[in-house]
Amino acid sequence: MVTQERALATRRMILEAAGSVFAEKGYSATTVADILKKLTLTRGAVYFHFSSKEELARAVLASQADVPTVVRDLKLQELIDLGVVFACQLTRDPVLQGSVRLSLELDSVGLDRKLPFQSWVDRNLRILEQASAQGEVRPHVNLVETAELLCSCFTGVQLFSQVMTGWVDLDARFRTLLKHVLSNIAEPWVLFQLDLSPDRGVKVGAELAALAEERAADGEEDPGRTDLAC
Amino acid sequence: MVTQERALATRRMILEAAGSVFAEKGYSATTVADILKKLTLTRGAVYFHFSSKEELARAVLASQADVPTVVRDLKLQELIDLGVVFACQLTRDPVLQGSVRLSLELDSVGLDRKLPFQSWVDRNLRILEQASAQGEVRPHVNLVETAELLCSCFTGVQLFSQVMTGWVDLDARFRTLLKHVLSNIAEPWVLFQLDLSPDRGVKVGAELAALAEERAADGEEDPGRTDLAC
Repeated sequence: MVTQERALATRRMILEAAGSVFAEKGYSATTVADILKKLTLTRGAVYFHFSSKEELARAVLASQADVPTVVRDLKLQELIDLGVVFACQLTRDPVLQGSVRLSLELDSVGLDRKLPFQSWVDRNLRILEQASAQGEVRPHVNLVETAELLCSCFTGVQLFSQVMTGWVDLDARFRTLLKHVLSNIAEPWVLFQLDLSPDRGVKVGAELAALAEERAADGEEDPGRTDLAC
Repeated sequence: MVTQERALATRRMILEAAGSVFAEKGYSATTVADILKKLTLTRGAVYFHFSSKEELARAVLASQADVPTVVRDLKLQELIDLGVVFACQLTRDPVLQGSVRLSLELDSVGLDRKLPFQSWVDRNLRILEQASAQGEVRPHVNLVETAELLCSCFTGVQLFSQVMTGWVDLDARFRTLLKHVLSNIAEPWVLFQLDLSPDRGVKVGAELAALAEERAADGEEDPGRTDLAC
């Protein structure tokens, strides 16, 4: 493993430890010592990557932006797949779990709680704008309003699913949300082609894993995160 | 003021103090001493009503069930009005604000976080069942699924609005949610009659205030909560 790869893998290891502690204890109750206990690294190695608990929390929060997606011709399918992948990864990725807890807690003092919400709104909006440009979106739809609503509702659905079943039914609840809102957003010719089936997560996960392997074979950077199959 | 009335008013005063502290600090960081500081009551008077911080938190959590509504012929309008009133009261009622924070926090150890969610689902479901029985709901709608989805989405919308604007735009965001989902739930003849206008909260608030005055004139119990106008 070359130095750059090793550094990325170490960074990822630290983020996973931090994510799992933030997910369990929240921001205030977490100490850097708690995170160190989960690692076989020295304090110095951790501080080489992150200078404080706050910097760790910022990096964990920012991980939501890394949720991968597959580019699609039908942009509303791309939007669905992004949510499906997020739902799948949330049940297994400690960094994402930590990130979600930090986003939801008021006591994460000093952290900008708007950031992860706004970054999801922006991501939704970019896809909705592309969808609209190619005629997939019904003309009355206010794109910003809908991008914000999708972010809000998905947040609520994941929270409800976490409280009720520990995320076991997150994927099903996410698809219920889409069934309720898509007919108001998508033109009928698009609705007809959208895949909302229960095995969508498995399909997209397999695609993402294959894409990651291709990139690895091409010698592209691997951030140490290969667990993409759903 | 007769003894019973005085006791109810005191209980309400304690709940408001507890709600505002829980809303500000969360469950773990709150102490009974913090709550006492907000009151001109003795420790003994508080303990006469609530034996512990946990009992206070339970009572604050349970307050969500007290959000009043007006019975309507059109049951989907009743459902809308319930949400509109909740959105309005949340911006002003410290007990409800405390309740929402307790529902959203994982660190509220020892409290059943499912309870407030389940109680909203049950309340939505009862209204949806009545709506369905009188033909307001489209035949494909799964009532339980929709009752849970509405609770989830409303939770997400209120959280998003809290983070982004401190609830200033909660009412507008709630109406955006309804505009997106109602066409999938309501039969067209009902959609046509539903009032989703921006001044709906003011109208329903005035009705609730008038109803409360009527009840007071009839000598019915007043729990010390007369701030119903929106």
